Amino acid sequence: MGRASAFLQGILSDISTGTGNPNGLALTIPESVYLCFQMTFAIITPALIAGAFAERMKFSAMLWFIGLWSILVYAPIAHWVWGSDGFMSNGNSDAWFKVLDFAGGTVVHINAGVAGLMCAICLGKRKDSGPGHNMVLTMIGASLLWVGWFGFNAGSAVTAGMQAGMAMTVTQIATAVAAFTWMLVEWAARGKPTVIGMCSGAVAGLVAITPASGFVGPVGSMAIGVAAGVLCYWGVTGLKRMLGVDDALDCFGVHAVGGIVGALLTGVFAIEQYGGTAGLIEGNAAQMVNQIQGIVIVFVYDAIVSLIILKILDAIIGLRVSDEVEREGLDLALHGETVQ
Amino acid sequence: MGRASAFLQGILSDISTGTGNPNGLALTIPESVYLCFQMTFAIITPALIAGAFAERMKFSAMLWFIGLWSILVYAPIAHWVWGSDGFMSNGNSDAWFKVLDFAGGTVVHINAGVAGLMCAICLGKRKDSGPGHNMVLTMIGASLLWVGWFGFNAGSAVTAGMQAGMAMTVTQIATAVAAFTWMLVEWAARGKPTVIGMCSGAVAGLVAITPASGFVGPVGSMAIGVAAGVLCYWGVTGLKRMLGVDDALDCFGVHAVGGIVGALLTGVFAIEQYGGTAGLIEGNAAQMVNQIQGIVIVFVYDAIVSLIILKILDAIIGLRVSDEVEREGLDLALHGETVQ
Amino acid sequence: MGRASAFLQGILSDISTGTGNPNGLALTIPESVYLCFQMTFAIITPALIAGAFAERMKFSAMLWFIGLWSILVYAPIAHWVWGSDGFMSNGNSDAWFKVLDFAGGTVVHINAGVAGLMCAICLGKRKDSGPGHNMVLTMIGASLLWVGWFGFNAGSAVTAGMQAGMAMTVTQIATAVAAFTWMLVEWAARGKPTVIGMCSGAVAGLVAITPASGFVGPVGSMAIGVAAGVLCYWGVTGLKRMLGVDDALDCFGVHAVGGIVGALLTGVFAIEQYGGTAGLIEGNAAQMVNQIQGIVIVFVYDAIVSLIILKILDAIIGLRVSDEVEREGLDLALHGETVQ
Repeated sequence: MGRASAFLQGILSDISTGTGNPNGLALTIPESVYLCFQMTFAIITPALIAGAFAERMKFSAMLWFIGLWSILVYAPIAHWVWGSDGFMSNGNSDAWFKVLDFAGGTVVHINAGVAGLMCAICLGKRKDSGPGHNMVLTMIGASLLWVGWFGFNAGSAVTAGMQAGMAMTVTQIATAVAAFTWMLVEWAARGKPTVIGMCSGAVAGLVAITPASGFVGPVGSMAIGVAAGVLCYWGVTGLKRMLGVDDALDCFGVHAVGGIVGALLTGVFAIEQYGGTAGLIEGNAAQMVNQIQGIVIVFVYDAIVSLIILKILDAIIGLRVSDEVEREGLDLALHGETVQ
Repeated sequence: MGRASAFLQGILSDISTGTGNPNGLALTIPESVYLCFQMTFAIITPALIAGAFAERMKFSAMLWFIGLWSILVYAPIAHWVWGSDGFMSNGNSDAWFKVLDFAGGTVVHINAGVAGLMCAICLGKRKDSGPGHNMVLTMIGASLLWVGWFGFNAGSAVTAGMQAGMAMTVTQIATAVAAFTWMLVEWAARGKPTVIGMCSGAVAGLVAITPASGFVGPVGSMAIGVAAGVLCYWGVTGLKRMLGVDDALDCFGVHAVGGIVGALLTGVFAIEQYGGTAGLIEGNAAQMVNQIQGIVIVFVYDAIVSLIILKILDAIIGLRVSDEVEREGLDLALHGETVQ
Repeated sequence: MGRASAFLQGILSDISTGTGNPNGLALTIPESVYLCFQMTFAIITPALIAGAFAERMKFSAMLWFIGLWSILVYAPIAHWVWGSDGFMSNGNSDAWFKVLDFAGGTVVHINAGVAGLMCAICLGKRKDSGPGHNMVLTMIGASLLWVGWFGFNAGSAVTAGMQAGMAMTVTQIATAVAAFTWMLVEWAARGKPTVIGMCSGAVAGLVAITPASGFVGPVGSMAIGVAAGVLCYWGVTGLKRMLGVDDALDCFGVHAVGGIVGALLTGVFAIEQYGGTAGLIEGNAAQMVNQIQGIVIVFVYDAIVSLIILKILDAIIGLRVSDEVEREGLDLALHGETVQ
C-alpha cells in the first residue's frame, strides 16, 4: 500500500473485502482485523519450524533465528504470494505469474517445512531420539488444531459467504479423509492403527487442503485427502529414511510434503465456479505451471536464506546446546523446569 | 429436497433461514454452512455411543457399527424430526404430528443413549471395570463440551437473533443449575461433592436443555436443570443398578435419561412467545402427547435397528476382543500405544 | 433500567449498541446476549479470587463467600463503573466522575485481586506451600485464557467494528510484549527464562491492557505491556515478600497490580480518536485524577466488604479446614477424588 506504517500508524482505516453482495452492503473490515488475521499466519509458521529443531537448539539462538527468519523469509514470501503487488500474487493483475494459494500452502507450510529441514541439517541429530510423544496431549493438540484451522481456511475468504462456507466444507472433508487414509495405510503397513497416526493424518490433510480450500469442490478435496494421507505417510517414513535427517516432529515430512501435494493438486482440481482459476481437471494446464514455479521459488529462496541465517548465527552465538545440557534435557538445564 | 446430491453436487446454492428482519436483509446462508452444521450433530452422536462400549469392542467392529448406524439409524431419525418433509418434523406443515426438538433431544441424545444401551447389552460387562477417570482431563473435557454446546443450541436458531440469544441463555442456566443440583444430591447421598459429579451434572443439564433450548424461557430452564440433575444422578446410580448393564461412561444414564427428561419438559415449559408451540404450562396438553410419541418411536426404532446391526456384525466379524486383548488393554494390544 | 427483572422477566427486548453505521443498519443486540456477555465477567471474577485461598478454605465457606461477594461487592461495583446510571460510569452523562474501564480493570481485576488478598490474610498461610504447578497444564490454561480474553476485550465494544478490531489488536500487542518482558526480567534476575514465567507475563499483559483496550493505540499498548511485565514480576516477588501473605496463585500480585497499572496507564495513553477521553499523552490530566479515584474507591470498598463477609463466615461456619484435612489434601479429604 506504499504507506509508512511503522508502529501501526494510520491503522484506523477500513479495507475492502469484496465487490457487492445481494443485500447491497459495503464489504469492508477494519484494517486492524485484517492485521490480526495475517498475524496468525506469521506466528504459526515459525512455530511449525520449531518441530524440526526440538531438544537441541539453544533458546537464545532460537529467538534470533525466528526473529530474523520472520523478517527475511516469511515477510517477503507472504507479500510475493498474497500482496496486492506480489509478483506471483493471484490478486495482482500485473503479476508475473499467478499462484493459487488460498490459505498458506506455499507461504506457511512449504515455507516452514523447508526451513525446518535446513535447521535439522545444520543442527545434526539428537543424541537420544526415542519416542517422546504423549498420546493424550497429542490428541488434544491435534483436535484444537483441527478446529482452529477453520479460522485459517474459511477466514481466508475474508468475508462471510459462499467461498468461506465451501472452504470450511472442503477442509473438513480433506482432513477426515486424510486421517482415515493414514490410518488404513498404517494398519496395512504396520498391523496396527494408532491415535498418533490418525492425528498425523489429520494434520497432513489440513496442510494439503490449505492452498486449495477456496478453489476446489468436495470431490477434489476427497482426492487431496487421499493423496495427503498416502504421501505424508511416506514423508515421515520412506522419505525420512532417505534424507537421514533428524526432523524431530516431522516438520518437513508433513508440512513441506503436504504443502507441495496441496499446491500441485490445487493446480489439478481448481474449479472456476468455486472461486479459482480453472485447473487441469477443467483443461487448463497453464495454472499447473504456475503452481510448480511458485513451489520452486519458495523452496529455493527459503532454503538459501534460512541456511545463511543459520550459518551466521552458528558462527556468532552457536546453534546447539552443549552435550551436557542436551543430556540433562533443555527444560531442566536451560529453563529450570523442575515440576512435571 | 428431492435433489440428487451425491458427492455434494449442486452445493453452491443458498438456503433460506427466516422470513425478514428489521433491517430488511435477505436471511440466507450458504448450503455448505448448513451442511457442516448438520454434520457436527451426525459426528457427535456416534461419539456419545462410544462411551457405552469402551474397553471391550473390536476396533474394526466399531468402525463398521458406526458407519452402518449413522446411515440406518441416525440419518432417518434426523430427517423424521428435522427434515422439511419429516413425518414428525416441526418444520413440516403436513407432518403426521410435530415434535419439538430444537437441537437434538431425540435425534442426538435419546438416540445415542439407546444405541449405547444396546451395545452394552450385546457386548456384556468388562472383566475389570474399576474407576478409570482422570479428574483433570474430565474437567477439561467437560469445559470444552460446555463451551462447544452453545454452538449446537444457539446455532440451531440458524440465524443470529432473539431465538439464538435465548437458546444461549437458557443453555447456560439449565447447565449451571443441573451441575449445582447434582453436586447437592451427591453431597447429601455420599457425603462428598466431587468434580466428576459436577461435570456429569453439567453434561446432564446440557443434554436436557437441548430439545427445549429454542422454546422455553429462563424459569423453565431452571426447572429443567433441577430435573436433569436429580434424574440423571438416579440414571447413573439406581437405574444403572436395576439395568445391571456395564454402560462404561453412562451413555444411557446421562444421554437417554437426560434426553427423555428434556423432551418431556419441553412439552411442559414451551412458551409460544419464545418460538415454540405452547406447552402444558400454557394449557396445551396436545404437544405433550406429540413429545411422548416422538420419544417412543425414536426409542423403539433405534433399539431394534441397533440390535440388528450388532447381531449381524457379531456373526460376521465378532464384536468383542479376546480375553487376552482385554486384559492387556486395547490401547496396547490393538493400537500399540506404548508411550503414556 | 429501573425494570423489575427477577428471573429475567421481559428479557425479550433488544438493546441498542451504537448510533448508526455506514450501511444504515440498526445496531441492536438481544438483551439475552448482553446478559450472557456480562455474566462471563461476573463468573470469572470470583474464579480469579480462588487463586488466593487455594488448598486451605472450606468448600462450604467458599460457596457462601462467592455467593455473597458476587452480590455485595461485584454487582454494585459493576454498576458503578459500567451501568448507565453508575456514579463513576463513562456511559452516564450525569456521573460524578468518569472512569475509563473498557473491559474490567477495576470491575474485574483490582476487584478480584483485593478480595483475594483479604482472603489470604484472613485464612493465614498454608502449612505446606511448595511449588505445585504443572508446566503443561499451566501452558494449556494460559493459552486458552489468551484466546478467550479477546472475547472480553474486543467484545466490550458490543458491536463489530473499528473499536472491537483495535481492542483485539492492542490486546495481542500488550500481551505478547508483557510475556516477552517478564521472560527477559526473569532471565536477568534468575538466570533462566521459564514457561511459567512467560505464562504469568502473558496474564499480566492481558490484565493490564483490559481497562485500556478500547481507548489506546498500538504504541500505548506496547508501553502497557512493558509496564505490566516489569511491575507484575515485582508483584509476585518483591511485593509478595513485603506483604508476607500466602497468596497461593498470585491473585493480588498479578490481577490487582496489573489492574492498577492498566487503570493508571489508561489515564496516560487514552487517545480520543480511538474511542476514549484524551489521556495525559494528549495533555489531559483530569482523566488521570478520575482513574485514581476509581481505583481507590474500588480498592477500599472491596477490601472492607470482603473482610466483613469473611469475618462473619468465619464466626458462623469457619473459613479454614482442619489441620488434618489440609495435611491429607482437600481433593482427597473433602471431595474423595482418589483417581489421579
